[in-house]
Amino acid sequence: MLAMLASEAGERKLIEAAVEAIGRISAPLQIGDDVAVVDAGGIGLVLKTDMLVASTDVPPQMAPWQVGWKAVVMNVSDMAAKGVKPAAGVLAIGVPGDYRLEDFKLLIKGASDAAREYGFEIVGGDTNACRELVVAVALAGVAKRIVPRSGAKPGDILATTGYFGLASAGLKHLLEGLPARPGDREALVKPVLEPKARLREGLALAPYASASIDSSDGLAWSVHELAKASGVGFRIEHIPIAPEAASFAEDNSLSPLDLALYGGEEYELVVTIPPESWSAAAKAVEEAGGRLIRVGVATREKHVVAVVDGREVEVEPRGYEHFLT
Amino acid sequence: MLAMLASEAGERKLIEAAVEAIGRISAPLQIGDDVAVVDAGGIGLVLKTDMLVASTDVPPQMAPWQVGWKAVVMNVSDMAAKGVKPAAGVLAIGVPGDYRLEDFKLLIKGASDAAREYGFEIVGGDTNACRELVVAVALAGVAKRIVPRSGAKPGDILATTGYFGLASAGLKHLLEGLPARPGDREALVKPVLEPKARLREGLALAPYASASIDSSDGLAWSVHELAKASGVGFRIEHIPIAPEAASFAEDNSLSPLDLALYGGEEYELVVTIPPESWSAAAKAVEEAGGRLIRVGVATREKHVVAVVDGREVEVEPRGYEHFLT
Repeated sequence: MLAMLASEAGERKLIEAAVEAIGRISAPLQIGDDVAVVDAGGIGLVLKTDMLVASTDVPPQMAPWQVGWKAVVMNVSDMAAKGVKPAAGVLAIGVPGDYRLEDFKLLIKGASDAAREYGFEIVGGDTNACRELVVAVALAGVAKRIVPRSGAKPGDILATTGYFGLASAGLKHLLEGLPARPGDREALVKPVLEPKARLREGLALAPYASASIDSSDGLAWSVHELAKASGVGFRIEHIPIAPEAASFAEDNSLSPLDLALYGGEEYELVVTIPPESWSAAAKAVEEAGGRLIRVGVATREKHVVAVVDGREVEVEPRGYEHFLT
Repeated sequence: MLAMLASEAGERKLIEAAVEAIGRISAPLQIGDDVAVVDAGGIGLVLKTDMLVASTDVPPQMAPWQVGWKAVVMNVSDMAAKGVKPAAGVLAIGVPGDYRLEDFKLLIKGASDAAREYGFEIVGGDTNACRELVVAVALAGVAKRIVPRSGAKPGDILATTGYFGLASAGLKHLLEGLPARPGDREALVKPVLEPKARLREGLALAPYASASIDSSDGLAWSVHELAKASGVGFRIEHIPIAPEAASFAEDNSLSPLDLALYGGEEYELVVTIPPESWSAAAKAVEEAGGRLIRVGVATREKHVVAVVDGREVEVEPRGYEHFLT
């Protein structure tokens, strides 16, 4: 098994190998949750890092400013899912020799603009020559309570902060050239090139959510992760598919459910809310400028199913695979 | 100027461009110091990131465990220079498809072992496919006081925590095949393949040092950085060259001063100590298991000079250049 190559192992097996190599750590969240939390002299220090790699995360249409923007947003999204406000970020960049200085500045500006959009700053970093463009962002925050992946109880309401399928349709449009309706193009492409993180929503949900994750690996994957961590199942009664994604699926003979369930690179939050907190949680998210969409319920049976045309179908634990790995 | 390519610009111009793109930030240390510090609700949050790239930072002789070890140590070294104990670290790794899973695990183990050596843990991370091996480490800590680069006053004593030239000689031995004396080989090669950070020394020095930096870009570069940030000059009266480096220079007709001043990848601390604190500082470092070597003095004249054979020579603001850029 260990003679296996990284390309054969894939990202998830690599993470398992890393967890095994490090062993158990003394931290409230174990490696593999969205963020890491440590006790630093009574202070709950929250850390997050996520790396963007040109060949797997950057469609050719993405401008340098957008690359920097996205690298920060994908990290903010994980902090948002845990209900933590980032206090500061740092940026380590690997730059190919033929990257233009102008584009480098735009990339940094995009990262800095994204940080400021979410109320913090990029306070430092590192730059190195590298064979391809790599942007590793790390964020730190301070938090008293972290919303884990593991707190869902049977009966809790499964909810999301938005509709799905836009970014996966947008990626298919950008990378495979599948046609998009002119009026829908912006709605599909923008979430790919300039994603937003649901930070305000995540902070508003923190007092109410029993479990939370972001949907960057796809809705199905996220729900399965919540199920696994919490020891519950889920019944998705209403798959929250965006109308533009449904039209795109129709035009291109794709399954709209596949787009919504197994796409990825979408930065919505997927949360569970105890029924008695539902109204307060929905109100808090609305006051934060967002919306909370009820999509299903946590179940005692440890399966993840979706109701499609009145029938229950199994939702597979399949996630978004980065496009050029 | 902006049409310039990254390879023409070089690392330092890229950092200048990044500082320009971000603009002034509201943080006690500005971008470009060794670590970043932000006020997170009254807590002094310290962040550091440094990226290791295979083609520029990893000699072919370096084992995967050592790669992980070094990636962490180079970050710890900067925290050490600022007198900050790391509380936790995260790791973002780009892995080429043909990297072996076994080596990946060893790399993670090396990073984790290094973190534990310095009293903290790797608590999370991210893994991606990448065209070359890239390891970005980010550390966070909490600190009341940070030793800046900018606090040196004329008359302060310039000191280091060790002797120089070993790693630069070691790199020449490993990369260019220059011969090393058999009895000295270990002393030259070990600092390259398994460097140590002077964390205990840095923590011991924190109450006394007026300015501090680590020497990863070379002794000359570090002293110039202290000079520039503090608005002083330095007179290096005694260049702290390691005996094994001097022998290596002699055998290979190299300048021992060049090895000690302009080499790099050495993780000693370069500090300034007000004269009245010298005894206490030296004692504190000894009690921490290290030594403080007096090498010169900060001057009002803003030049950096070294005394060589009784004559003053100019020390150039030249640093270590990574070997394969």
